[in-house]
Order: sequence, then structure tokens, then C-alpha cells
Amino acid sequence: MQVPAGPKGTRDFYPDDMALREAIFSSWRSTCGRYGFEQFDAPMFEHLDLYTQKSGDEIEKQLYVFQDKAGRSLALRPELTPSLARMVAAKGNNLKRPVRWFSIPRLFRYEKMQKGRLREFFQLNMDILGVAEATADAELIAASVDMMRDLGFTARDFGVHVSSRALMEQLFLALGVPAEKLPSLYGVLDKRNKISKEEFNAELAAAVSPAASPSAVAEALSVTSLADLEKVGGPLPAAGELQQLFSYLGTYGMDEFVSFDIGVVRGLAYYTGIVFELFDAARSLRAIAGGGRYDKLVKLYGGPDTPAVGFAAGDVVLGEMLLQKQFTAGNRRSNVFLISLDERHPENAIRTATLIRHAGISCEFSLRKTGVGKQMEQANAARSLLAVFVGGEEEKGGSVRVRNMKSGEEDLIDRRELVSRLAKLLSA
Amino acid sequence: MQVPAGPKGTRDFYPDDMALREAIFSSWRSTCGRYGFEQFDAPMFEHLDLYTQKSGDEIEKQLYVFQDKAGRSLALRPELTPSLARMVAAKGNNLKRPVRWFSIPRLFRYEKMQKGRLREFFQLNMDILGVAEATADAELIAASVDMMRDLGFTARDFGVHVSSRALMEQLFLALGVPAEKLPSLYGVLDKRNKISKEEFNAELAAAVSPAASPSAVAEALSVTSLADLEKVGGPLPAAGELQQLFSYLGTYGMDEFVSFDIGVVRGLAYYTGIVFELFDAARSLRAIAGGGRYDKLVKLYGGPDTPAVGFAAGDVVLGEMLLQKQFTAGNRRSNVFLISLDERHPENAIRTATLIRHAGISCEFSLRKTGVGKQMEQANAARSLLAVFVGGEEEKGGSVRVRNMKSGEEDLIDRRELVSRLAKLLSA
Repeated sequence: MQVPAGPKGTRDFYPDDMALREAIFSSWRSTCGRYGFEQFDAPMFEHLDLYTQKSGDEIEKQLYVFQDKAGRSLALRPELTPSLARMVAAKGNNLKRPVRWFSIPRLFRYEKMQKGRLREFFQLNMDILGVAEATADAELIAASVDMMRDLGFTARDFGVHVSSRALMEQLFLALGVPAEKLPSLYGVLDKRNKISKEEFNAELAAAVSPAASPSAVAEALSVTSLADLEKVGGPLPAAGELQQLFSYLGTYGMDEFVSFDIGVVRGLAYYTGIVFELFDAARSLRAIAGGGRYDKLVKLYGGPDTPAVGFAAGDVVLGEMLLQKQFTAGNRRSNVFLISLDERHPENAIRTATLIRHAGISCEFSLRKTGVGKQMEQANAARSLLAVFVGGEEEKGGSVRVRNMKSGEEDLIDRRELVSRLAKLLSA
Repeated sequence: MQVPAGPKGTRDFYPDDMALREAIFSSWRSTCGRYGFEQFDAPMFEHLDLYTQKSGDEIEKQLYVFQDKAGRSLALRPELTPSLARMVAAKGNNLKRPVRWFSIPRLFRYEKMQKGRLREFFQLNMDILGVAEATADAELIAASVDMMRDLGFTARDFGVHVSSRALMEQLFLALGVPAEKLPSLYGVLDKRNKISKEEFNAELAAAVSPAASPSAVAEALSVTSLADLEKVGGPLPAAGELQQLFSYLGTYGMDEFVSFDIGVVRGLAYYTGIVFELFDAARSLRAIAGGGRYDKLVKLYGGPDTPAVGFAAGDVVLGEMLLQKQFTAGNRRSNVFLISLDERHPENAIRTATLIRHAGISCEFSLRKTGVGKQMEQANAARSLLAVFVGGEEEKGGSVRVRNMKSGEEDLIDRRELVSRLAKLLSA
């Protein structure tokens, strides 16, 4: 019989894969800790409505939808933000503001598979709710940069591209695009890097004319600084807010990482203010992370008016970047491996392992009676740092032989001091 | 509009709930680390076949089943063992034995909700594959006890009840029960504590007569020691194996935790040898954990013949036991809260926070311009240990005031030494 495979778009995490995943998660938790964020989580599936209410029925095409046995329509979560907004809404005003929450959700999207995109993946989510000021936007962008630095990346590896939905709205209205055409214009802009230049120009023209001039809109979209943008669109209040954000980011020491990029739109309709995306420097991969301000979502779910800003970073693109950097996660099964030298196996090994484990030290031994050579092989497979020989001649004299598996050096240790000496050897 | 609720049988994890969950997970990881187990994971859903092949079509009633858009039948995972067996089978003989793996899967069962049972829950899974000897069974039972001790429980709180499927088979065959009646007999035994005594006796009689005497079977089931069991059933080879297991567990120092209990059956059909369950001492809750030997599963999925033993512990019952013990998980949002004293907010705070965070210390500040009193309230809400006053008069002289939020004590610290002094204060 053939061994069955796992479902398409999912991953099996063997211990080496899991070590990489845990290294990423542990770095994420550490960054969130430094920034003073608390961890939360929500169910793995929600009522389908929660997603369609926010994103329209269109979203259903990307969802794993199912009915439970009572006929409720449920969907595996494709993102965590709706659940977050629901949870914050449910607490009304009883939740102390600001809310500074992070989560590492497992998510599911039924999408066409591509490089850097799977159907089951993980994200880091960081959100601040209850702060309308640009300080919150700056705090989150700074955290996203530190999330990358904590993983070993520098300004040579990635950049943060920042724009503003409010700015775009002001700009396009100033250029004559009618308000009701904005959503379809954003849809076209979001596709910019995914379709040909000709297709883009044709779709752009269809979206803005005749009320606005397609060439004027295209010119505005080629601008690379906020100052130049006001030359094209006239004075735009949101440009000042964005300047303030960049000024704060400068104070965070983030100048080399952040830039204004009018090309950042973010497909999701719910953004209301700044939007930003992190990309690898070569722009050869999908976005590393993305986020922005979404001031209306908590209210949409029946909660109090709550300004909010957040971002999400996925594990798939980050994992690829780490592997490109030859990143290796340590994956040691146990620090100490006991080698049984006599027939009193396994009793001798059990007693010694129990002693060592009680001291909080990772320890194992061969569960099968076998020769010293085979046991040493097992110790190597477990990537153990130290081998401890139990039941040998020395033990009668009260000593235990300990071998450094890397250097091959051996020590005779007084049996009564075994645990404390092992702890010392391991911390060296 | 009413705030939508999460799906029935699931939980929202607000930060305090999450702190409890993380305390349990962190204890689980620590125990697995001491025992030399490596972490793995599998997809959150599998092809439906994977479960029906192991457990029969019956299992589908308990599953969240759905079709993906290509018409594949998938199911949210109700347990991790089938995925584990599939992953081990897929590697054939390339995977070094023994496999010592653990995982903390999120699982889903569409079941009637009861105390201690939800539709979405977590488990600790620990498994050893490749060892047929009772040493592996002993190692896992010892680990399950240490998992409980690491969470603060003692022999007054719980016990491990051990039996053996092989022993039962030998016993019932010796008493005249035909081999083909064994599965339905196990089914009856598994219901023993869930139905009335009369119902149990009636179902028992129906399952074993006329070939065997219901009263002889009932008598055997009332036995409390292995020695007495052989008086009833004659010599049973599996009793010797179980004796060996208890002897190993004695060497582990586990005598006070473990006992023979013929009442442990484990509903799942795939167990082949020892079976065990952990219960609270008062037996007022569902099982804390359960497991046993399943030597045929890897082969069932097309892999090589692989002896295997494992157990699973759920988070729901454990969480209830911890709350009964008034267990509280620390939930501090940040160690240091900056209090801005002047108008140079937020720039001053951003600069100081950046410095402190770069040293790996958890730090935040008010993202809104507000009075000192409000900022102190925020520091309390974040349960910060230290408040650091930035931008005050002292700063002009090169000093920074630091306040211990618990004792109210204040110190003036040289600005150039701020980070190292904070680290010292926090480690004290």
C-alpha cells in the first residue's frame, strides 16, 4: 500500500522543519515582548458571516467553508483581524485602552499555490487599538523592522514601503476621480505588479475616465516623494500626517528602512489611513509583511468606535529568506545521553536519568539493550553534548566517566557531584 | 448591532486566558525537553480517509468534514496520531529509530459538549516509535507523571491507571469469550462508568454469553491486582510483561503514582499492548491523559513494521484542575513604562524606549499625550515593574528617576547607566 500524502498546500513539520518554525516564532514572541504586547488567540474557525460582513461575498471563494452538523456555515480563518475586532467589540468599553495585542495564528486560504504562498500558513499579527495618533502607526512600523532585525536581517535585505489610503483619496479626488470610482481604482492599483503595463494602463483609463485624465493619474503614480506629490495634486492634508509619521520613524532610528511608496495600496477594503508593506530588497518575493490603519472595523461588528492599526507577517516568505541566508535552527534532542556499560540495564540508566532530569537537564538513554557502539550512534543521532557512562568499573569506586561528544575529552566525576558538574559543563 | 459570538464549543483567548494556556504549553515543552523529545507538527486537516482507515466510518460522526473546491473530502484533525503514523510511514526506514517526538496539536471533535470537553481543544502528544520493549512504555508513563509534577500536582492530586489490551485478550479468551466477540466486549467495558450497573451487566451478558459465563467475566473485572487476576484466569503471559513495567516504574520512583486497573480499556480500537489513563484523585473529572501501545498503525498506512507507544493529555481538564488550585499565570505586558514629563513627547519617550528595547528589555510608553496621572494608570494596567520618568528637570543634570511600581521606592540613575541599571533592577 502507498503511504497517503497530506492535503495539497499544507506542510508536514518534521523536527528539523519544526525547529525553523519555532526559531521564527520565538523571535516573534521576543520582539513582541520587548514592545510590550500581550498574546491573544481566537478560534480556528468562525461563522462565515464574520468574513463576508467585512470583505463581501467575494471572499468566500478563498475560504475553506463547511457546515457543522447543526447546519451553521463556518469557515477556517483566513486572517485573524475579524476575530480580533469581534473580541474587542464584545468587551465594549470594559477593555483598557490602548489594546496592544499580538498573536501567531495558523491561517487557511484556498488559493492558487505560488512561490511563497501555501494554503495553510502562519502569521505574526501585532495590533494597537484605541490610539488615533500617528504614534501608534510609528510604533508598529518600528516593531515590524525590529521583528526583521531580530531574525538577523539588515537594511540591505528589506525595506518598509509606506503610503496612505487617506492621502490617495485626497489625491485622486483632487485629480477629478469621482468618490464612487475609488474602490475600482484601488483594485487596479493593487494589480499593478501582477499585470502587463499595457493592461494596467487600459484598466486605469477605464477606471478614471472620463471624469479624470488617465495620464494625470499615471503621472501622480510615478511620483517618489511627498513633496513632488503636492506639486501634482495640490495641498493634501494627509501628506502632513505622513510627514509626521516619517519624522517619528526617524526618531526611532528607522530612516534607512522606510520610504514613501505610492504603489502600496493593500487590497483589503477596510484600511482607512496609512498602509505599509515590507519587501525583500530585490523585490523577488511576495510581501514579507503588510498592514495599516483600520479605524472602522470594531464598530462594524457592533463595538464602540475604536481607532486601530496593525500588521501581519507570514512565515512562508520569511522562512525562504532565512534559508537563503543559510539560517540553521539548532535542533538538539537531548543534552546528555547515558551509555550503559553493564547488564544492569535499564535500571541503572533509569535511576541516573531520573536524577539528571529532576535537575532540569535534558537526558535520555537507549531503551533497548545494545552494545556501546550502537548507543554512541544514538547519542550522535540525538546530537547530545555529553555522554555519561553508567555501570562501568569506575562506578564501583564512586566515579562516573563523562565524555564531551564534540572534543572527545573525558572526565572522571565524583558520582555525588554528577548533576551539578553536568550543569556546569553544559553552561560552559 | 449585536456583536457576533464565536462558534459553539470554541474559546476566545483574551490575554489572561492566553497566559494560562501558555503556562501549560511552556510546562509541557519543558518536560518534553528534559526527556529528550523533539517537536513535530502536521497539517490542521487531513484527507478524511486517513481517519476512517484507522477508526472505521463511525468516526465521521465526530469529525468536522468538508470538501475543498476540487471535491476532496477533508476533515479537521480530531487527534494527531494518524498524522504521526503517516509521517513516520512516509520516511520508511530513513528515519532514525527510536523516534521520540512530541507535539502540542490543536484538535477538533464535533461532540456533545460536557464539563471538560470542548469542540476545539489542545493536547500534549508524546510518542516513542521503534521500541517494542516495556522500557518505552515506562519512559512515557514516567514522562506523563513528570508532566503533572511540573505543573505542581502531587500523588494526592492524580494517579496513573494501567492495564493491558494483551492481558485482557488472554484473560477473556481463557474465560471462554470467542475472539470475534472481543471488540464488542471492549466497547461495553469502555462504557462501564457511563451507564447504570444494570445496563452494564445486561450488555456484558449479551457480549459474552453463551460461550463464556457473564458472572465469571464480571468477577475477573472486579480484581484489583495482577496476582489475583491469575487466580481467576490462570497463567497469563501478559501479566509478566505488566509486572516488568511496574518494576521499571518503581525504579523511576513512580510507585506512589501508578496502579493496575483492569477498568482501563481505552475506546480506540488500535491499541495492542499496555493502555493507561491519568485521573484526578477524586475521579470527578474526565481523564487527564490517556495512551498505550499501538504497534500496527504505521504498517496500516504502508510504512515498515514499527512498534509504537504514546499518550495524549488535554488542556481542558488540566486547565480546570489548575484553576481549582488557584493557579495564576503571570501576565505582565511590559517591565518598564516610560512616563513623559514634558512637551517633548513623544520624541523623548521614543528615543529612550528604543534604547531600552535594544537591550532586550520590555518597554512601552503612552502613545497619546496625556497627564502624568493617566500615564501612571497605563503603567499599572500594563503591570509594569518599573516606571522611568523622561524629560524632567533631573534629566538636564544627566539623571533619570526610576520608580519601583510595587514599593513606590525611587532612585536617581545616571542617564548613561540607565539600561544596565534597569537590567539589574529587573533581575533582582
